[in-house]
Amino acid sequence: MHLSDLLIGRRLANQEGKARKITALEGLPAMGLDGLGSSAYGPEAALTILIPLGAEGLRLVRPIMAAILVLLGVLYLSYRQTIEAYPSNGGSFTVAKENLGTNAGLLAASALMIDYVLNVAVGISAGIGALTSAIPPLHPYTLELCLVVLAVITIVNLRGTLEAGLVFSVPTYLFVASLGGVLLFGLAKAFAADGHPVPVVPPPPVSAATQTAALWLLLRAFASGCTAMTGVEAVSNGVSAFRDPAVKYAHRTLSGIVLILGFLLAAISWLCPVYGVSAMDETQPGYQSVLSQLTGAIVGRGVVYFIAIGSLLAVLCLSANTSFVDFPRLCRLVARDGYLPRAFAAPGRRLVYSVGILWLAAAAGLLLTVFGGITDRLIPLFAVGAFTAFTLSQLGMAFHWVRRQGNRVRLFINGTGAAGTGAALAVILSAKFVEGAWITVLVIPLVIAVLKAIRRHYDLIDRQLREDGSIDLRGLEPPIVLIPLERCDRLAEKAVRFALLLSHDVIAIHLTKLEGPDAEEQEGALRREWRDEVERPARSAGLTAPKLVISASPYRSFVGRLVKQVAEIEEQYPDRPLAVVIPQVVEEHWWDYLLLNNLRTRRLCTALMRHGGPNLAVIKVPWAYEPPHPEKVIVEEEPQTQQTASAAAQPV
Amino acid sequence: MHLSDLLIGRRLANQEGKARKITALEGLPAMGLDGLGSSAYGPEAALTILIPLGAEGLRLVRPIMAAILVLLGVLYLSYRQTIEAYPSNGGSFTVAKENLGTNAGLLAASALMIDYVLNVAVGISAGIGALTSAIPPLHPYTLELCLVVLAVITIVNLRGTLEAGLVFSVPTYLFVASLGGVLLFGLAKAFAADGHPVPVVPPPPVSAATQTAALWLLLRAFASGCTAMTGVEAVSNGVSAFRDPAVKYAHRTLSGIVLILGFLLAAISWLCPVYGVSAMDETQPGYQSVLSQLTGAIVGRGVVYFIAIGSLLAVLCLSANTSFVDFPRLCRLVARDGYLPRAFAAPGRRLVYSVGILWLAAAAGLLLTVFGGITDRLIPLFAVGAFTAFTLSQLGMAFHWVRRQGNRVRLFINGTGAAGTGAALAVILSAKFVEGAWITVLVIPLVIAVLKAIRRHYDLIDRQLREDGSIDLRGLEPPIVLIPLERCDRLAEKAVRFALLLSHDVIAIHLTKLEGPDAEEQEGALRREWRDEVERPARSAGLTAPKLVISASPYRSFVGRLVKQVAEIEEQYPDRPLAVVIPQVVEEHWWDYLLLNNLRTRRLCTALMRHGGPNLAVIKVPWAYEPPHPEKVIVEEEPQTQQTASAAAQPV
Repeated sequence: MHLSDLLIGRRLANQEGKARKITALEGLPAMGLDGLGSSAYGPEAALTILIPLGAEGLRLVRPIMAAILVLLGVLYLSYRQTIEAYPSNGGSFTVAKENLGTNAGLLAASALMIDYVLNVAVGISAGIGALTSAIPPLHPYTLELCLVVLAVITIVNLRGTLEAGLVFSVPTYLFVASLGGVLLFGLAKAFAADGHPVPVVPPPPVSAATQTAALWLLLRAFASGCTAMTGVEAVSNGVSAFRDPAVKYAHRTLSGIVLILGFLLAAISWLCPVYGVSAMDETQPGYQSVLSQLTGAIVGRGVVYFIAIGSLLAVLCLSANTSFVDFPRLCRLVARDGYLPRAFAAPGRRLVYSVGILWLAAAAGLLLTVFGGITDRLIPLFAVGAFTAFTLSQLGMAFHWVRRQGNRVRLFINGTGAAGTGAALAVILSAKFVEGAWITVLVIPLVIAVLKAIRRHYDLIDRQLREDGSIDLRGLEPPIVLIPLERCDRLAEKAVRFALLLSHDVIAIHLTKLEGPDAEEQEGALRREWRDEVERPARSAGLTAPKLVISASPYRSFVGRLVKQVAEIEEQYPDRPLAVVIPQVVEEHWWDYLLLNNLRTRRLCTALMRHGGPNLAVIKVPWAYEPPHPEKVIVEEEPQTQQTASAAAQPV
Repeated sequence: MHLSDLLIGRRLANQEGKARKITALEGLPAMGLDGLGSSAYGPEAALTILIPLGAEGLRLVRPIMAAILVLLGVLYLSYRQTIEAYPSNGGSFTVAKENLGTNAGLLAASALMIDYVLNVAVGISAGIGALTSAIPPLHPYTLELCLVVLAVITIVNLRGTLEAGLVFSVPTYLFVASLGGVLLFGLAKAFAADGHPVPVVPPPPVSAATQTAALWLLLRAFASGCTAMTGVEAVSNGVSAFRDPAVKYAHRTLSGIVLILGFLLAAISWLCPVYGVSAMDETQPGYQSVLSQLTGAIVGRGVVYFIAIGSLLAVLCLSANTSFVDFPRLCRLVARDGYLPRAFAAPGRRLVYSVGILWLAAAAGLLLTVFGGITDRLIPLFAVGAFTAFTLSQLGMAFHWVRRQGNRVRLFINGTGAAGTGAALAVILSAKFVEGAWITVLVIPLVIAVLKAIRRHYDLIDRQLREDGSIDLRGLEPPIVLIPLERCDRLAEKAVRFALLLSHDVIAIHLTKLEGPDAEEQEGALRREWRDEVERPARSAGLTAPKLVISASPYRSFVGRLVKQVAEIEEQYPDRPLAVVIPQVVEEHWWDYLLLNNLRTRRLCTALMRHGGPNLAVIKVPWAYEPPHPEKVIVEEEPQTQQTASAAAQPV
C-alpha cells in the first residue's frame, strides 16, 4: 500500500477526473513524442535505400520527401476532420467500426495494438542503442537499461497522462528548440553562402553510384521514408484525454505535432544535399546517423551538437510514451465492446486504464527480454500496422461523408487520404514483405481471432446469466451441512455453530491417515470427545446433534477424499442443497502463511468450487487467534487489529 | 498430474510403506555416498596443510591419519551403540534432546540442518568443478550443470529412498571396486618392490620445505583431515528408513561404510609417502588432486585410471544424496515437536517427507545460484555443524549410560567418542574460525531462535484453540446476510436463494461508480429489476423480501468499500452473526482465469477473512456456465464435466 502510494500516487476520486484532463501543452509531449521522434529515422530510412545511387540519390531525396510531406498534409487535414466528426473518440477502431463494420474495426484495432507494442520495444531499444554506442562501457547493460526506461515510462503513465505530459515535456521541447535551431541556422548559412555553405565538420564523402535510379528503388525509398509519419494518428486515438473543449485542444496538439514534424522533415531533406550528407552503412565501423552528420556539418561538435543529439536520444527512448497514452484507451474501447476482458475498461486508482498500461509494459518487456534489448529485426514489422490503421480510418471517414451526402470537400480530403495511405501501405507491404512484414500480416488475423473468441465466450456466459424471467424461489430446503473436522477445538466450534444455524442435518467428517490399533485408539478418543463436547451440549440446547463420520484415507489425500464424499452425498440426496463449512485460522502475519496449514483448506475450497454442482455452497468461517500480549498490541497497532484482538478474546 | 506421475511416480498407499523400506544393499549408496566421498578430500586436506613442511610433511601424514582412524573407530563403536539404544531413531537431535535437554537437541538439529544444506551445495559444485576442469568446454555451464544434478537428485529422492539407493548404487559400487582395486594393486606392488615401487606416471616432485613441524600445524592438519569423517552420522539419523529388524540393517550399513572408508583412508595415507605423492597448490596451473596423482602412479593413465577418477567424480556429485535422505527425516522429527511447520512431518505421495526434500533443494539451489556454482568459499563453514552434532550425540549417549548406571564399557566408548569429537571440534573451530567457521557459529543460534519462535507461535495458537470445555451452542440466531450485487441475473439468483435459506434479513449491496444523471438512471433501472424479479417472487413464495442498498463508490474501490459496509453492520448489530454470500462464475478452463473478473471476488473473500470478527462467515456460491455444444461435450469429455454441464442446464 505505502509503496504504491509513493510510486503511483494516492487514489483519485471519480470527480477529480475532470481536473486530470490535458491541454495542448501536455498533449504535445504525451502524444507527439512518437511523431517527432520519427523525424530522426524517416529521412535516414529513405536515404539508406538511395545509397546505391551515390550523389544522384542525394538529389532524389527532395522530391521523395516532398511526396511524403504532401501525404502528411493530407493526413493532417483528414485527422482534423476525424477529430471533429468523432469528438468523444476518433480512433481508427471507432471510425472503422462505425462506418465499415465490426470486422474492419477489429482489423484496425489489432493492427494498432501490434504497432503500439512494437513501438515501445523498438523505440526504447533504439534510444538505448544510440546511448550505448556513445558510451561503450554501458553496452553490457543494454537490456537492463531498456527495462529501466520501460519501468520509468510505465510508472509515470500509471500516475496519469497529465503527469506523463508534464514529465516528458522537458526533453520534447528541448529537442524541438535545439534541433529546430540548428536546422534554422543551417538554412540561414546556406542562403547566405548562396547554396554552397562550408561544413564545419565535413561529412564523409558520398559513396560512388553502383546503380541508376529505377522506379522500384524510388518506391522503396518512399515506403521507408513513410515511417516518418507514424505517430500522427496518436491524437485522434486519445481525444478523450483532453480537457473541454476537447476538439479544440486536440486540433491544437495535432497542428503542433504536424507543423514541427513537417518543418523538421522539410529542413532535413533540403539541407542534406546542400551539405553533402548521405546515409552511411550501419554495419560498417565509423557509422554516423544522418542527423549527427548534418548537425556536425552545421554547428560542429560543440555544446549545441551534444544538446541536440542528446535530446534526440531522449525523444527516441520516450517515443514509447505515445503508445502508453493510446494503447490503454484503445483497449478500453475494445473491452467495452466485449472483445477484451472487462478489466481493461476499468479506470485504475489514478483514473487511467492501468490494466492496459501493465499489459503493454509486459508485452514490450517480453519482446525486449527475448531480443536482449536489441530489436533491429523488429523494425520491418513496424509501419504495416500504422498504415493499415491510417487507411481504414480514412476509408471509414470517406464512407462517413458519403452516407451524410453533400460535403464534397471533406469527402475529397478523406478520400485522398485513404488513397494515399492505401497506396503507401501497398508499397510498404510489398517492399518489406520478405524482410519481416509477413509476420505482421500473419499476427493480425490471429489477434482478431482471439478478440472474437473472447467476445464469443462473454456472449455465451452472458446469455446464460441473463436467461429469462424473475428469480425462482420455490423449493427452498435447508441444506445438508458437511464439516471437515480435524479435532474438537475452538475451530470446530465455530464451524459447528454456524452449521447448526443453517440446518439440522450436520455431518462432520474426520479423515484418518492411521491404520491398525493406532487408528482405533485415535478414533475412540475422537468419538468420546465428540459425544461429550458436541453432541451433549447440542441436545441440551434443544438441537439435533451433529453426526460424526470417520473415514479412512489410505492415500493420505485430503482434498480428493472430501470432494468424493461431497459427490456421494450429492448422489444420495440429489435435490437437497449442500453446504461445506470450512473453518480456517486467519493469517494475521506473513509468517502465518508458512506456519498455518491453510494451503490445504484453500485447495479444498477451490476444488469444491470447481466441482460445483447446482446445489453446492462453500462456507468459510474465520477464526482469529489472539496475539501474545494484547495490552501491548492495543497501544501500538492500528485499529483494525485491535478489533480483531478484542473480538477473539471474548468467548464466541 | 500426469507430469508428476511421470517424474515422481504414482501415489503410494500407507500400507505400501513397509515394502518401501531399505536393506544394507540400498542403505550403503543412499547414506554412504557422503562418507565415502570424504575419502577423496580428507587426506588431501591434511596434506595441503602439510605442504610447507616438504618431504617431512609427507612422512607426518601417516601418524595424523592414524589418529583420525582411531577417532573413526571410536565413532563407529559409539554410533553402533546409539543405533541399538534408539532403534526407532538415533539421530543427534533425538539423542541430545532426550539426554541433554531440548536446547541441546535444537543445537544439534540446527547444526545438522546447516551442514546438510552446505553438503549438498559443496558436494555438487565439487563434482561439477572436477568435471569441468577435465572437460574445459563445459566450464561456462557450471551453474546449469550443478542445478541439473540437483534437480536429478531431488526428483530421485522424491520418488523414494529406495529408488535413490538403487539408482545410486551403480556409481557407488563402481567407485568402491575401482578405487579399492587400484589401492590394493598399489599395496601389492609396494610390498613386492620392498617399499620402493616405481611409479608408472611419476608424480611431480615434492616442493622444498619452508617451515619445520610445529604443534599448531599438525593440529590444523588433523582438523582438516577430520573432514574425512563427515557423513558417518548419516546412518544413525536415518534408522527409520530401514526394513525390520532395523537395527541389524543399520548396523550392517554403518559397518560397511566405516570399513570401506577406513580401508580407503589407511591405504591412501600409507601409499602417498611410498609413491612420493603430496598435495599440490590448487591455485597453480597444472594442479592435480592427490587421488589423481596416486592412481596415475599406480596404474598409469589408462582405462582403469579414468574409471576410478570418473566414478569418484560421480560419488562427489552424488554425496548430496546423503543429505536428501537425512534432512527430511530430521525435519520431520523437529516438526513433530512443533519447531517446524507441520507440513514437514506429512508423508508425501511417495511416503517420503517431500516438503523437507523440496526445502533442502531450494536452499541448496539458492546457495549454488548465489555462488554461481563455485562454492569453494563455503568449505570452511562445513564440518563445524557435523562435529557439533557428533559431540552432542556422543555426550548425550554418555549421559544416557550414566543415568542407566552400569555398562561402564559403553559409557567409556561414548565418553571417548565425546572427548575425541569435542577435541576435534575445538581444533576445527579455532583453525578455521577466521576463514569462515565464524559464519556457522553465528547462523546456528539464529536457526535455533527461528525454531523456537515457530514453536512459541504454535503453542500460542494451540492454547487458544484447545481452550477449556465443550462447544458453546447457546444464543444461536439467524445471521444477517449480505450479497454484493452487480446486476439481477442467474448469479444473483443463486446468491439470493442461498441467502434466503439462511435468514430473513437479506441485504443486497450494489456499488455504483457512476455519478450524476447516469447514476440515477442506472439506479432506477436496477431498483425496477429488483422489485420485479426478486421482491415480488420472494413475497409470493411467502418469504421476507430481500432489501436492496445502492451505495456510491467515489474511489471505485470494491473490496475496501464492502469490508467497510460489513464493519458498519457489525457495529450496528454487534451480537448478530453476519454472512456474506459471494456468487462466483466457476473457471472451467484456464482462459476463464483471465476473462472472468474473479480476482476481485477472491480479494474480497481474503479481505473478509482477514477482517474476521467473531460472527462473520464468508459463503461462496459457485455458478457453472454451460459449454457451447452440450451434445458434443457429453460424448467427448470426462464424466466430471458432463455432470457440471447437465447440472448447469437444468433450472436451479
